[in-house]
Amino acid sequence: MTFSKVLINGEIINMEQATTSIFDRGYQFGDGVAELVPVYNGRCFGLLPHMEDFFSSVIAMKLPGIYTMEELVEFHEEVIRANNIVNGEIYTQLTRGEASYGLDFPEMTVPKLAMQAVAADRAELTEKQATGVNIITETDNRWLRCDVNTLNKLPEVLAKQKARVARAYDALFVRENGIITESTESNFFVVKDDLLWTHPANNLIRNSVSRRLVKERLAVDLGLQVIEKAFNLDFVLKSEEAFLVGPRIEIIPVTKIDRQFIEGGVGQITRQLIDAYKAFIARECPPQTL
Amino acid sequence: MTFSKVLINGEIINMEQATTSIFDRGYQFGDGVAELVPVYNGRCFGLLPHMEDFFSSVIAMKLPGIYTMEELVEFHEEVIRANNIVNGEIYTQLTRGEASYGLDFPEMTVPKLAMQAVAADRAELTEKQATGVNIITETDNRWLRCDVNTLNKLPEVLAKQKARVARAYDALFVRENGIITESTESNFFVVKDDLLWTHPANNLIRNSVSRRLVKERLAVDLGLQVIEKAFNLDFVLKSEEAFLVGPRIEIIPVTKIDRQFIEGGVGQITRQLIDAYKAFIARECPPQTL
Repeated sequence: MTFSKVLINGEIINMEQATTSIFDRGYQFGDGVAELVPVYNGRCFGLLPHMEDFFSSVIAMKLPGIYTMEELVEFHEEVIRANNIVNGEIYTQLTRGEASYGLDFPEMTVPKLAMQAVAADRAELTEKQATGVNIITETDNRWLRCDVNTLNKLPEVLAKQKARVARAYDALFVRENGIITESTESNFFVVKDDLLWTHPANNLIRNSVSRRLVKERLAVDLGLQVIEKAFNLDFVLKSEEAFLVGPRIEIIPVTKIDRQFIEGGVGQITRQLIDAYKAFIARECPPQTL
Repeated sequence: MTFSKVLINGEIINMEQATTSIFDRGYQFGDGVAELVPVYNGRCFGLLPHMEDFFSSVIAMKLPGIYTMEELVEFHEEVIRANNIVNGEIYTQLTRGEASYGLDFPEMTVPKLAMQAVAADRAELTEKQATGVNIITETDNRWLRCDVNTLNKLPEVLAKQKARVARAYDALFVRENGIITESTESNFFVVKDDLLWTHPANNLIRNSVSRRLVKERLAVDLGLQVIEKAFNLDFVLKSEEAFLVGPRIEIIPVTKIDRQFIEGGVGQITRQLIDAYKAFIARECPPQTL
């Protein structure tokens, strides 16, 4: 499915008309930030926390914040209406705008907001949630502000591509010291001794809305304790279960890493969390009744 | 001075018409590479080595390399002619082209080439070369492929901006372990015990055309030995001279770092290298005679 309407600086237009100047600093330097919001049943899931994250990125990158929360909420609804999105994602990016070539930036650039609807194959997702996926590891050579969702995504691009070429679902980033951080667009958890383990929410990972949902709500409801502590691949391979967490994928069990099996396969606790995540979505995004 | 003609995919057009789709992966992920070539007297300086670097970046980022060296040389000449550039720079970027949203990339994208002319104030440069500049240090939190000239430039953008706000000329990147790598767009050298010291050409710095020129030609001609060895700020502050080297700035003496003076100010060896650099340019880019 292709959604043909995009929103540029607040206006809905056809995707063919959706251009930007080559002098846009987003194009020249990746000078901007992004956020991706999943849509279920025509409703945004976790829109407010996603927009809070978006504003945090805007501030971290010192972008001019010219839109209000209310406007961004309204823009998401407009993109849904214009494209009749039932299930999908809305990808938003804000760049610093046009300027003459130069790394430092003028104070008065006009930032550019571009929002597009992205198709999401939730049936395929459900399949993957049932079978689990295999992933590879890749050296985490990213910059040290991985907590910010910027348009500088080359390490993730190359790692995800490497995973695809290796017929793996995703690539798990491993720092030079052996510490596992996260995957190209998801957080990573393991279950060990009936505890959930995940990398602490510092500058090395994105503390995504989904990660917070698992940690602060779903795990709590299921009586699971979350340990935020860095660990290595050896630790993972001795774990009972492993899974990825993110707005695009909810929760997906990981059954193999670099061709080595996770002991428990698609484990019981992962299944419970997947169900709890789906139930949470169902409550927040019930089917529309006309 | 504003140059109004740009070259997009081989065609000269007006800058107002120079747009790209918001689905260009360069816009979405900074998924592309760049190169900047200085122009003196209407002639590109170091065009071939610059283009070799460009191709290296293209390969490192697995971009489809659809242009030949001959075409790129011709394109540079066209940009010069179209804008009547006497002195300036030509900034070239190649992005992976348009694709549906997703980190991994289709094999068959059509890369987009965008070339623009950038004004260069060489009179101001000459002034700075006479007086020297003050710079600040900034934590080097960049990714570990700084040898590639990509469109992921947020760390450099933020550091250069920080320098400007601090009324400094540039920011010198310092890794967590105290090692000085390079500045936001230049290499960094010090003179100590009559030797030239600079960071080794590994993944932590860009081995620019200018750096190679200094190391392989100018220093040799002046009988100076270059030591490629990592050093920290303490070492710099005990040095006799310090300078920045890069295609945009040739060589600029550094007289102060974080408000601490370099002993020798604008030093003798730096001056000799500046003169040798300028003489080299004069030979390669003599004034046009009609």
